[in-house]
Amino acid sequence: MLYSRQLDELLFNALEEDIGHGDITTQATVAAERWAQGKFIAKAAGVVCGLLLVQRVFALLDPQIQFSSHVKEGEKISKGMVLAEISGPAGSILTGERVALNFLQHLSGIATQTRAAVEQVEGTKTKIVDTRKTTPGLRLVEKYAVRVGGAMNHRYNLADGVLIKDNHIVAAGGISQAISRVRSQVPHIMKIEIEVENLLQLSEALQAGAEVILLDNMSAEEMTKAVQMVDGRVLTEASGNMGEKDLREIAGTGVDFISIGALTHTVKALDISLRFVNEA
Amino acid sequence: MLYSRQLDELLFNALEEDIGHGDITTQATVAAERWAQGKFIAKAAGVVCGLLLVQRVFALLDPQIQFSSHVKEGEKISKGMVLAEISGPAGSILTGERVALNFLQHLSGIATQTRAAVEQVEGTKTKIVDTRKTTPGLRLVEKYAVRVGGAMNHRYNLADGVLIKDNHIVAAGGISQAISRVRSQVPHIMKIEIEVENLLQLSEALQAGAEVILLDNMSAEEMTKAVQMVDGRVLTEASGNMGEKDLREIAGTGVDFISIGALTHTVKALDISLRFVNEA
Amino acid sequence: MLYSRQLDELLFNALEEDIGHGDITTQATVAAERWAQGKFIAKAAGVVCGLLLVQRVFALLDPQIQFSSHVKEGEKISKGMVLAEISGPAGSILTGERVALNFLQHLSGIATQTRAAVEQVEGTKTKIVDTRKTTPGLRLVEKYAVRVGGAMNHRYNLADGVLIKDNHIVAAGGISQAISRVRSQVPHIMKIEIEVENLLQLSEALQAGAEVILLDNMSAEEMTKAVQMVDGRVLTEASGNMGEKDLREIAGTGVDFISIGALTHTVKALDISLRFVNEA
Amino acid sequence: MLYSRQLDELLFNALEEDIGHGDITTQATVAAERWAQGKFIAKAAGVVCGLLLVQRVFALLDPQIQFSSHVKEGEKISKGMVLAEISGPAGSILTGERVALNFLQHLSGIATQTRAAVEQVEGTKTKIVDTRKTTPGLRLVEKYAVRVGGAMNHRYNLADGVLIKDNHIVAAGGISQAISRVRSQVPHIMKIEIEVENLLQLSEALQAGAEVILLDNMSAEEMTKAVQMVDGRVLTEASGNMGEKDLREIAGTGVDFISIGALTHTVKALDISLRFVNEA
Amino acid sequence: MLYSRQLDELLFNALEEDIGHGDITTQATVAAERWAQGKFIAKAAGVVCGLLLVQRVFALLDPQIQFSSHVKEGEKISKGMVLAEISGPAGSILTGERVALNFLQHLSGIATQTRAAVEQVEGTKTKIVDTRKTTPGLRLVEKYAVRVGGAMNHRYNLADGVLIKDNHIVAAGGISQAISRVRSQVPHIMKIEIEVENLLQLSEALQAGAEVILLDNMSAEEMTKAVQMVDGRVLTEASGNMGEKDLREIAGTGVDFISIGALTHTVKALDISLRFVNEA
Amino acid sequence: MLYSRQLDELLFNALEEDIGHGDITTQATVAAERWAQGKFIAKAAGVVCGLLLVQRVFALLDPQIQFSSHVKEGEKISKGMVLAEISGPAGSILTGERVALNFLQHLSGIATQTRAAVEQVEGTKTKIVDTRKTTPGLRLVEKYAVRVGGAMNHRYNLADGVLIKDNHIVAAGGISQAISRVRSQVPHIMKIEIEVENLLQLSEALQAGAEVILLDNMSAEEMTKAVQMVDGRVLTEASGNMGEKDLREIAGTGVDFISIGALTHTVKALDISLRFVNEA
Repeated sequence: MLYSRQLDELLFNALEEDIGHGDITTQATVAAERWAQGKFIAKAAGVVCGLLLVQRVFALLDPQIQFSSHVKEGEKISKGMVLAEISGPAGSILTGERVALNFLQHLSGIATQTRAAVEQVEGTKTKIVDTRKTTPGLRLVEKYAVRVGGAMNHRYNLADGVLIKDNHIVAAGGISQAISRVRSQVPHIMKIEIEVENLLQLSEALQAGAEVILLDNMSAEEMTKAVQMVDGRVLTEASGNMGEKDLREIAGTGVDFISIGALTHTVKALDISLRFVNEA
Repeated sequence: MLYSRQLDELLFNALEEDIGHGDITTQATVAAERWAQGKFIAKAAGVVCGLLLVQRVFALLDPQIQFSSHVKEGEKISKGMVLAEISGPAGSILTGERVALNFLQHLSGIATQTRAAVEQVEGTKTKIVDTRKTTPGLRLVEKYAVRVGGAMNHRYNLADGVLIKDNHIVAAGGISQAISRVRSQVPHIMKIEIEVENLLQLSEALQAGAEVILLDNMSAEEMTKAVQMVDGRVLTEASGNMGEKDLREIAGTGVDFISIGALTHTVKALDISLRFVNEA
Repeated sequence: MLYSRQLDELLFNALEEDIGHGDITTQATVAAERWAQGKFIAKAAGVVCGLLLVQRVFALLDPQIQFSSHVKEGEKISKGMVLAEISGPAGSILTGERVALNFLQHLSGIATQTRAAVEQVEGTKTKIVDTRKTTPGLRLVEKYAVRVGGAMNHRYNLADGVLIKDNHIVAAGGISQAISRVRSQVPHIMKIEIEVENLLQLSEALQAGAEVILLDNMSAEEMTKAVQMVDGRVLTEASGNMGEKDLREIAGTGVDFISIGALTHTVKALDISLRFVNEA
Repeated sequence: MLYSRQLDELLFNALEEDIGHGDITTQATVAAERWAQGKFIAKAAGVVCGLLLVQRVFALLDPQIQFSSHVKEGEKISKGMVLAEISGPAGSILTGERVALNFLQHLSGIATQTRAAVEQVEGTKTKIVDTRKTTPGLRLVEKYAVRVGGAMNHRYNLADGVLIKDNHIVAAGGISQAISRVRSQVPHIMKIEIEVENLLQLSEALQAGAEVILLDNMSAEEMTKAVQMVDGRVLTEASGNMGEKDLREIAGTGVDFISIGALTHTVKALDISLRFVNEA
Repeated sequence: MLYSRQLDELLFNALEEDIGHGDITTQATVAAERWAQGKFIAKAAGVVCGLLLVQRVFALLDPQIQFSSHVKEGEKISKGMVLAEISGPAGSILTGERVALNFLQHLSGIATQTRAAVEQVEGTKTKIVDTRKTTPGLRLVEKYAVRVGGAMNHRYNLADGVLIKDNHIVAAGGISQAISRVRSQVPHIMKIEIEVENLLQLSEALQAGAEVILLDNMSAEEMTKAVQMVDGRVLTEASGNMGEKDLREIAGTGVDFISIGALTHTVKALDISLRFVNEA
Repeated sequence: MLYSRQLDELLFNALEEDIGHGDITTQATVAAERWAQGKFIAKAAGVVCGLLLVQRVFALLDPQIQFSSHVKEGEKISKGMVLAEISGPAGSILTGERVALNFLQHLSGIATQTRAAVEQVEGTKTKIVDTRKTTPGLRLVEKYAVRVGGAMNHRYNLADGVLIKDNHIVAAGGISQAISRVRSQVPHIMKIEIEVENLLQLSEALQAGAEVILLDNMSAEEMTKAVQMVDGRVLTEASGNMGEKDLREIAGTGVDFISIGALTHTVKALDISLRFVNEA
């Protein structure tokens, strides 16, 4: 992730949300010239993600703050590990602490559960992908956390990928009409993905020139048949509450991708804290 | 929650994030004059929150959309229940669906787990409150969901409440110095809350004029002693991974408040879907 | 183009740019209650585009203004034709006139020259597409004008499509490395397009799994060979100063697409004026 | 043009428009530590304008990029000339290339055709000025390009200059009423310009105290008479499709200014490219 | 003042500044369905200005609010007068009250003291004008209040008017150089104003073609001589702490304009209150 | 006041308001390489406030400008004192001068009159506080000026403090209902302030658990009785046109706080100028 104004806007807004017109407790108690040192410490095992954001949050808040990571984005961490160190004006560090941790814990939570899903299908050809079920406002960084966790991204939004769902099909008057309309209006560099619920629809979709097939809420058995019918001509993607399924079993059907909304819609924050050191 | 420009900005940004320069699939397949009807259906039991946002999301996207709720914010819902109905241009509904559901599921998730916590302490005098461990950018609506869930809000941000933590105490040179500095600089309408880790600190804090005491990471036994020492003179608040504690036991110590970060930092989306009806 | 906040921002900014803190001439000379009627008249033949924006510009400026189009977006118009009528407060119409015309003339200019290009290849299977050589800030509406003119859009920006150019190939260490890296990192719903300059590169690209081939600055003869080598397995796109080429000859090579930067980077405004009527 | 936040906003928005949530091709193929060098090369003769913007675009995108111009804004350039050199992270340069060139080619196109107009009237007292027929959103930089091209700016927008047109006259009840109303309401540091279509109106305008006369769509002959009638008492400006007229002939009428909308509304991009060097 | 997005931004920002994330007192005490009526009452005599803003503030906050003025902008009001009535949801009115009054009292304060200045010079040909000494962020509305008070505006900002001061003269190398440089670079529709401190400078300025002369900090006697020297050829403006001078005496010197910074930099809020009626 | 994006936005907006698309006089007369030095000089005695903003204004405008203060925020200054020195590009200093002075004079005006109020009650236990009667858009810096002047801030806005007024009481159905509703909905770290107009209401408020009492428009005599009735159990605040009262007499009643709207709503700019030195 390059330096990006979009990211800075996100971090600035988070800082303003939490600081408002000023951190009145810190302003009243901490002298401007007081310096502090602290360590970010994992209080649970997982996969770390977001240290780049933490660094930038503090840089935006106070350029005098020094920050250095001991681990890389995506590294597995264990309880008690020191993830990074920080030093600088004590007041600024205290003021930015909560925002920094809120990002770090949330994104590490996503990376951690993404990694778990990826590991379940390890050794198969199936890849894990995310969805658009992200937290409003955080898509940029949540999709980053998914990649850091080892999975791939699906489309970013409604503008950069085609996914024809049942209602689009109904509105267009059938599968082949929907596909042909899309083909004539959408940039030629985009593949056409279509959602099917059974083998009949699948057969129609293949005939109409679909390039990616989303197998929606099928049993493992039905998916296996679908994959056989497709026979490698186009890509297949398993979908539908995959967060609660046995991913290894799904991968066994031979699908190319499994998309999991829960990677981003149901996140357990990874417990990480900032501990101040030698500061008396 | 009155009509608010802050809320509108949040919703508009979420729409732009998800729609980008346009919903290319819908534009290609759904005729502008096509109308549709749909129902928001609970696929799991819980406490609903966010229907007001769903309504506003669609109103911002397309004023022709009609939306009517069947339940009230904060109502308990069961699996299969119809929460709301929507009708209007099919294209607009399809385009706004994901953003609307992302808000609804997330906020209902918060309201649901907040209600569970509130019910655990029912019948005691203890109240559940939230923290600043919210998702960056969503504090306005997450704190709303906490209220809808039946708990109370703690301070909104660093500007509208005082909480003196250990590092502030160290920086100020002691508990009484910290409190006196704050008292002389902070508006007189704010109570001074201070974090203490043991009874000795508590005793100092009381003497120095603290008005709310945060009992940090104490055992239930220690908390009981603390509450006895306070003897109703000031308010007490239990804190420290309360999301994993037996809240009824904590309430039994007699504390006035229990603050729980997990209400907002670890959220399981409540499963709700939009089903289109009779639309052929 | 649905109602869109992005569009409104564009129009509002254009209004602010032109109006500043107020239209001092109009404020001094035109009474608030004075009403006026006017007609938008073509002063040259072409393809009209932007009436939707004109309508919205005036709606944003003054909701009392009535606007009705006599022609549809994309319609061919001849010199002297009345394109639309407007009525409302004279002051508001005068104040918004220039911004409205600036959009209308520019977008109609694009639609007009796009239509000319499309007509050149009519009857062939080749399609005209645009590029990212758009006027900064106007991509949303310029790509709309291209569609209105009858051509298709290429990718919208660097995020929603892959195009591997020579420098990417050099950096990645070769064509097959570049394609394989992209394949493993980019969403599976995107086709991989690669730029080739000769048949050798084309052959490598095909072998490496490219899905769209951009034939850069080739002669018609060389393109014909390239198309034959591709033999319908992937899509082909001719590129390189196509604005100055004989498009019919290029189409004769059998390429699927011709991308033309000049559609948007070198635009002759279509002359359209607003004439006030019976207003004394 | 001083450092300006308005300019930065323009450039940032152009970058966001073109980069979206990230340059996926470059991110996948170009290693972060890879360095590159490139040259901006003129592929056609003209007047260069916009190198300052190019430099700023890259500085905003990546402060590690070095940029040095070989020519000055407004200099005449010939085909094949190296205009500037750039070096820095290869990925950042590739990501910013299109936006930089889009500005550079557009503004150089304006400067080139402005210079041509200025040269046509060289040796006369007549000066070329621009109009408000600029591309929406780009007025700041297009008016800059006009100055770089050697012409002068007319008013920036409706707030910083008076121009009474026929509809204002009708609304005010006549030329003298319009002028007297404006005089009593508009800051005393502004001259009052009025549009006249014939010598009768001119006579009235002079009597009423007009300070600048816009001669609208007059023949050269009529303009000559108008200039004689004015006799140096106020300024005169020729207007009306001047982009298609013989400017030398118009200047021969003795008018002080010729305003040309086509300087900014009909722009041919000047062909300039970025060529990477020695990069293997 | 037409409907304007700039004005709306100003009012929205003022509302956000005062309301933050919500009016907690009102939300807790006033039921959503409770209706209220109120009257805006003058508690001191003066000139009213800002009722249009008050109306818009409440419209932006809650479209259900009804507002009707009993007086016009610029009308003289006496103590006890009812200026306007309001009715609507009690909560919304209470929430918006302070912002509405802050604007109304401030702008009425400006209009009141502007009117007093205007009345001092009544009967003379001298006009009162404002300066750029406005409150940061409020120039749009403060200059409006000056007009409502009966005076005229000077230039709006540094971009829409020329005023050559001593430092510009020094930098340019003298009065005639400064004027000639400005003349060759600044739009021909702007008059050139220059500041002079004595008759010698005045003489130079007249010779160099200045069109407006600012007489800076001169005694009444010296001004009289200056006006005689100018002899109606150009405009004259008296300046320099005019807020503390006898304006009638200054007008007696025959200057065309007196510019007074204190009209906007030293404002006494006009006391106006909102009284609720019959609301039990 | 830490570095703050909110402050920067305020300053940037003020600069844009005053500079528009450029300072045309300075651009025409002052060469880019010309350097200048200047001194900020007090032309009246008072308390200085805003030098930090002046420094930041110039830093945002041109990083080459050097600025050094000779006095500290809040220091008493006398007529003729040099407050700060500035050096850098002459053009940039001239362009930023007015905005810098507008802030400095306004905030110093507030600090000066605040200090005067504070000195009136010196030696008593009573403290001066401000109100929400601030200039729209400037609350952040005006409340800062109040602190610099030596007084304390009351609540920042409607979200960070409770103040129950008569209309809230009526709407809630009485004093005790209002207080109990607020207590159950508002964060426990906030004190509940209520406005009372007589001793009967005071008695009710005390019984209902009010924590701060605002004594509205009472005579000194009545206030004295009120303070006696309160007897130190809760805080008391005198309010109601306090800007026109004898503050020492009010303090004599024993109230804890006096809130004065006039500190910020009726401000006399402190006269400070920028004088250029040795610049020829």
